[in-house]
Amino acid sequence: MKPIVPLLFAGVLAFAQAPQHDLMPAPASLTFGEGRLAIDGGFRVAVTGYDEPRLRSAAARLVERLQRRTGIPMRPGSAATLTLECQRASLPVQAVGEDESYTLEVTSAGARLRAPLPLGLLRGLETFLQLVRLDAQGFAVPAVSIRDQPRFAWRGLLIDAGRHFMPLAVLKRNIDGMAAVKLNLLHLHLSDDQGFRIESKAFPKLHQFGSNGQFYTQEQMREIVAYARERGIRVIPEFDMPGHTSSWFLGHPELASAPGPYRVERTWGVHYGLIDPTREEVYQFLDRFIGDMAQLFPDAYFHIGGDEVLPRQWNENAAIQAFLQKNGIRDAHALQACFNRRLLAIVTRHGKRMMGWDEILHPDLPKDIVIHSWRGAKSLAAAARQGYQGILSWGYYLDLMRPASAHYAVDPMSGEAAALSPEEAKRILGGEACLWSEYVSPEILDGRIWPRMAAIAERFWSPAATTDADSMYRRLEAASRHLELSGLTHRSNYRPILERIAGPGNLAALETLAQVVEPLKEYARSTARPYYSDTPLNHLVDAVPPESSTARLFNRRVERLNPAGIPGVRSTLARWRDNHARLLPTLERSALAAELAPVSEGLSKMAALGLEALDYREQGKRPPADWVKNSLALLDTLSLRPLPPESQPFCMEILTRHNRGEQQARKTCAAPRPAAELLIQIKPGIQTLLRALE
Amino acid sequence: MKPIVPLLFAGVLAFAQAPQHDLMPAPASLTFGEGRLAIDGGFRVAVTGYDEPRLRSAAARLVERLQRRTGIPMRPGSAATLTLECQRASLPVQAVGEDESYTLEVTSAGARLRAPLPLGLLRGLETFLQLVRLDAQGFAVPAVSIRDQPRFAWRGLLIDAGRHFMPLAVLKRNIDGMAAVKLNLLHLHLSDDQGFRIESKAFPKLHQFGSNGQFYTQEQMREIVAYARERGIRVIPEFDMPGHTSSWFLGHPELASAPGPYRVERTWGVHYGLIDPTREEVYQFLDRFIGDMAQLFPDAYFHIGGDEVLPRQWNENAAIQAFLQKNGIRDAHALQACFNRRLLAIVTRHGKRMMGWDEILHPDLPKDIVIHSWRGAKSLAAAARQGYQGILSWGYYLDLMRPASAHYAVDPMSGEAAALSPEEAKRILGGEACLWSEYVSPEILDGRIWPRMAAIAERFWSPAATTDADSMYRRLEAASRHLELSGLTHRSNYRPILERIAGPGNLAALETLAQVVEPLKEYARSTARPYYSDTPLNHLVDAVPPESSTARLFNRRVERLNPAGIPGVRSTLARWRDNHARLLPTLERSALAAELAPVSEGLSKMAALGLEALDYREQGKRPPADWVKNSLALLDTLSLRPLPPESQPFCMEILTRHNRGEQQARKTCAAPRPAAELLIQIKPGIQTLLRALE
Repeated sequence: MKPIVPLLFAGVLAFAQAPQHDLMPAPASLTFGEGRLAIDGGFRVAVTGYDEPRLRSAAARLVERLQRRTGIPMRPGSAATLTLECQRASLPVQAVGEDESYTLEVTSAGARLRAPLPLGLLRGLETFLQLVRLDAQGFAVPAVSIRDQPRFAWRGLLIDAGRHFMPLAVLKRNIDGMAAVKLNLLHLHLSDDQGFRIESKAFPKLHQFGSNGQFYTQEQMREIVAYARERGIRVIPEFDMPGHTSSWFLGHPELASAPGPYRVERTWGVHYGLIDPTREEVYQFLDRFIGDMAQLFPDAYFHIGGDEVLPRQWNENAAIQAFLQKNGIRDAHALQACFNRRLLAIVTRHGKRMMGWDEILHPDLPKDIVIHSWRGAKSLAAAARQGYQGILSWGYYLDLMRPASAHYAVDPMSGEAAALSPEEAKRILGGEACLWSEYVSPEILDGRIWPRMAAIAERFWSPAATTDADSMYRRLEAASRHLELSGLTHRSNYRPILERIAGPGNLAALETLAQVVEPLKEYARSTARPYYSDTPLNHLVDAVPPESSTARLFNRRVERLNPAGIPGVRSTLARWRDNHARLLPTLERSALAAELAPVSEGLSKMAALGLEALDYREQGKRPPADWVKNSLALLDTLSLRPLPPESQPFCMEILTRHNRGEQQARKTCAAPRPAAELLIQIKPGIQTLLRALE
Repeated sequence: MKPIVPLLFAGVLAFAQAPQHDLMPAPASLTFGEGRLAIDGGFRVAVTGYDEPRLRSAAARLVERLQRRTGIPMRPGSAATLTLECQRASLPVQAVGEDESYTLEVTSAGARLRAPLPLGLLRGLETFLQLVRLDAQGFAVPAVSIRDQPRFAWRGLLIDAGRHFMPLAVLKRNIDGMAAVKLNLLHLHLSDDQGFRIESKAFPKLHQFGSNGQFYTQEQMREIVAYARERGIRVIPEFDMPGHTSSWFLGHPELASAPGPYRVERTWGVHYGLIDPTREEVYQFLDRFIGDMAQLFPDAYFHIGGDEVLPRQWNENAAIQAFLQKNGIRDAHALQACFNRRLLAIVTRHGKRMMGWDEILHPDLPKDIVIHSWRGAKSLAAAARQGYQGILSWGYYLDLMRPASAHYAVDPMSGEAAALSPEEAKRILGGEACLWSEYVSPEILDGRIWPRMAAIAERFWSPAATTDADSMYRRLEAASRHLELSGLTHRSNYRPILERIAGPGNLAALETLAQVVEPLKEYARSTARPYYSDTPLNHLVDAVPPESSTARLFNRRVERLNPAGIPGVRSTLARWRDNHARLLPTLERSALAAELAPVSEGLSKMAALGLEALDYREQGKRPPADWVKNSLALLDTLSLRPLPPESQPFCMEILTRHNRGEQQARKTCAAPRPAAELLIQIKPGIQTLLRALE
């Protein structure tokens, strides 16, 4: 056995011969041994301990995936290559904190995977598959000894099927991806102003009127729950209440706090429709509705949303106001707390634990609800101090287009949580990445989630000290390939989407541009042009990954630039400078590419500035006075464009609905903004080249 | 209306503004109009004439595919964009020669698709979808007037599920691809020495013992037949008899002409197992077996194979020899004719028309059998003269790795068929492309069939005068993209397979090599190394397309080289020359890439020779005496390698089983051959550069 390479230092100890692993999430402990276990056509899995059908199908899936990984048809031999051994059955409904630990011992003679429960074996199988590599002798798993268990019990992904419906096949392949990176919870956001996405047997008008025909039948949802169970993944539903409920009111206007009429909303952002929490019929309705859903989702938890209540309807409803006065309820937040107490009773009666977004945190609510923090890590720590269990989603919003490193740096136990007592700290169960789908169609969903998700999954699973971003990015690339093999489409789908945009045009030039741009960050897209729920998401901003690895590597290369590296940087810059001319015919011929003209020109000019800066540097000349300053200022304006006049009203509507003052909104809507909702991400590198001349 | 551009001259009349279409197969007549029909989110299909569920689902599929093509979510508006109008129902079982004609009129106001039968509408919908393009205004179909009908009634694709089983999903996506290029027949080769691939209710031991567990259940096959029917495609089964039947004999040795024992054969080529045609029990068996299959496949035709009978078992069986003598049967061919007459009676009794490979052609057989020509076009013409209907597969064997242009040049009506009387000519029903799957796994099937298949489909559908290869290659590229959109994987699957081969190595360098090589042609792979039915097909030879467009374009460019083009050719050659150095680390690290070393080095040396030739040319110098001759000779040896000694016995076995004399076989097996079963296809271009110096 070679000495253990502590994972903590794996990225730092980059000495040439140190064996490295590509595993993501990184295991708790790993020791490389001598030799390798060959993977060939005779590969066979044997179950030696406790056995159940789930293990058999997991083993069959492993073989199927090994075949895809290697291209070798497997016809099991007589000797087992890998033995699976666990002690007893998992719980019939997977519980939070159920043992997921496993050990994996691989020698040249065979592999042995052991775990207390089948759940641990499922996790270990994913590790085994990630270990397979091709070397000069063929496919193999290196000799290795792994002991592994998760750091957090709650490791989730939220998929928003409310804003854009995500078909069954899309959910399934994402569940496969989740299993591959050891996530254990799928949170389905099933209702929102823009759609009610599940068949209600109790109240069919909910899905019939509220979904535009796009909903999951109960049978389909049972299929999803079973599919996830097979892979060791829980499924919890979220029905967001009392806000985000416009789609409920088409079939059931009697639930609302204002007479309507209602429609399935076509715009994003927060709408005004609210459930009326003052009428008993509402609770009778919710009791039947939740009873129906509680039997459909076997998980112990039930998410009632509870976020973003704009109290206009409550404030304008005389009966509600009278109710407040009569009952001494101070304000909307207190009224929501009343609603939540009633909901809690219902949810509890149906055998579930209630959870909701951090707005539900209120002194009146008992300690057995779970707080889901999205507005900041502070509320998580506060909840834990007050005795509530909680999970963190703030910092893990995948739709905000932040780089993997930013998510990776967020830890549920950092900030105020670091100061919690051990008992309080235990209340923090883990986290959930969220993909809100305003700008996500089924076609591009995978490209939005994966592979940044793998970095977050590592944060949830691996030891707290696993924080080296370089190591993370190196393994993320391997994970990305691996995830594509698991059936995801974030890589394979990229090129066909670019081909669609290029139309009959030059794909290589479009690809060059696509490689260095990223979508607008945070919520900047919401006012960038009129967006409706059926607006096609077929532009370059929808196709490009949230993070440009080309730009990231370029910016780093420029930061560490020495004379030997200059020719390489020059030729890269020259290619970018010349790309606009190559792309021009495409911009003229394709309606989907036309909007890219300022971006393409911007890239070209940025690259030209970078080349000029290199000229000065290499000639050892000082640039003219103010040249650097002016160039930096120019950089900031490249590819900015004012919002066209016809888009101004939309921008104003969105901002005022979100309570921005009119003057502020007007200013925001008048300001120039990045064309085509794209950022040219080599800008930091060009800034570096310019500033080096100062 | 603009004047008609006769398709015949479409490739020749390349004047700048002539509107071109990308359709494949090209329609019988096409006239461009003025304007375009915009395709947007309100796209709606209406059925105005005769209606049936098949039309509804075809319309729904069209919308779904339009969404994929455009990325636009479609929420049908009130006005119909496209109307479908036909007069009456198609036959319940699609018949050969059933009317497939249609007319399509597109103006800026709408599109109208008309046909006598739903079948014609299905064909026209594919044309409509192929017409969609992206221009500066958005997605649209150009104003156009099309009248179209097929040239041949029988337009098929044979998929060999015997040698490698092809899962249901693979068949389905290939059926979608067939529909996209207006093919109308799927021929499933369901049994062979290496596997019996369908559930037999009458004789379950056939599939239980003969398939290694890989077979279609009858339920699955009904699903395939229904899936094909929805798309206007017939399905006929082939049960190859009396040879190619080893897999039958595991469960039913009593059918065989020798006692066995038998096994599911693991090697390719022709084996010796033959059904015994002299015993009555055999016909009782076949009667029940064919009865079972006849109800499963509703099509009017039933294929009994009949090819490649090696008569060793018959010659060595005393009872059979006695039977011959007793009945005055002259030889094995006559005995096979006896067998076929009995089979014909059975097939006819079960309501089917019998067809078989051209070996079944025998004066004793009545004229109502159909001859399937694979050994040459001659037998097709001969059969037609004798009064038999026939179809052509010779010239359309996709597994032989010939270029699209070669298949495109084969016409069922050329050669001797051109001299047939009109009445005789009518007996030639059409053709079938064949994909024999010795070297084809499900993973690479699409890459073997598509898109050369589209060129053959055009041969079967379009007017005889549609023969311009340049036009074909231009449209083949568009068809290839289009087919990928139909769900095929020949493009998307290529890169992941290369990534697997490259392992942790440099993908770009491997891609450069992959772009200029092609698999060995014809049957050369059969002796290139020991191949068994479970040999992994995960080498570069399995990944690269049958035809290299990079090499084709390079060779053409070099043929027409003028001084202005030289720098471009030089930089291409330099990249190839330098590629070997870039690929070396990959060759050392990846077991799947190691065999490529001689090929990579060969490419490098070829390119260096080309650069040297260009040096002479540009300097206006004559090369030393014999330099050209020696270089040409060198070219012929680059990347050749002798077969390793351990592969010799395999090579000898294969060749002697196929009746080559031992001396000839020894010579063949000792000869050097292309390394890694790959041909470097820029060789003609380099030869051109060298010969230009002579």
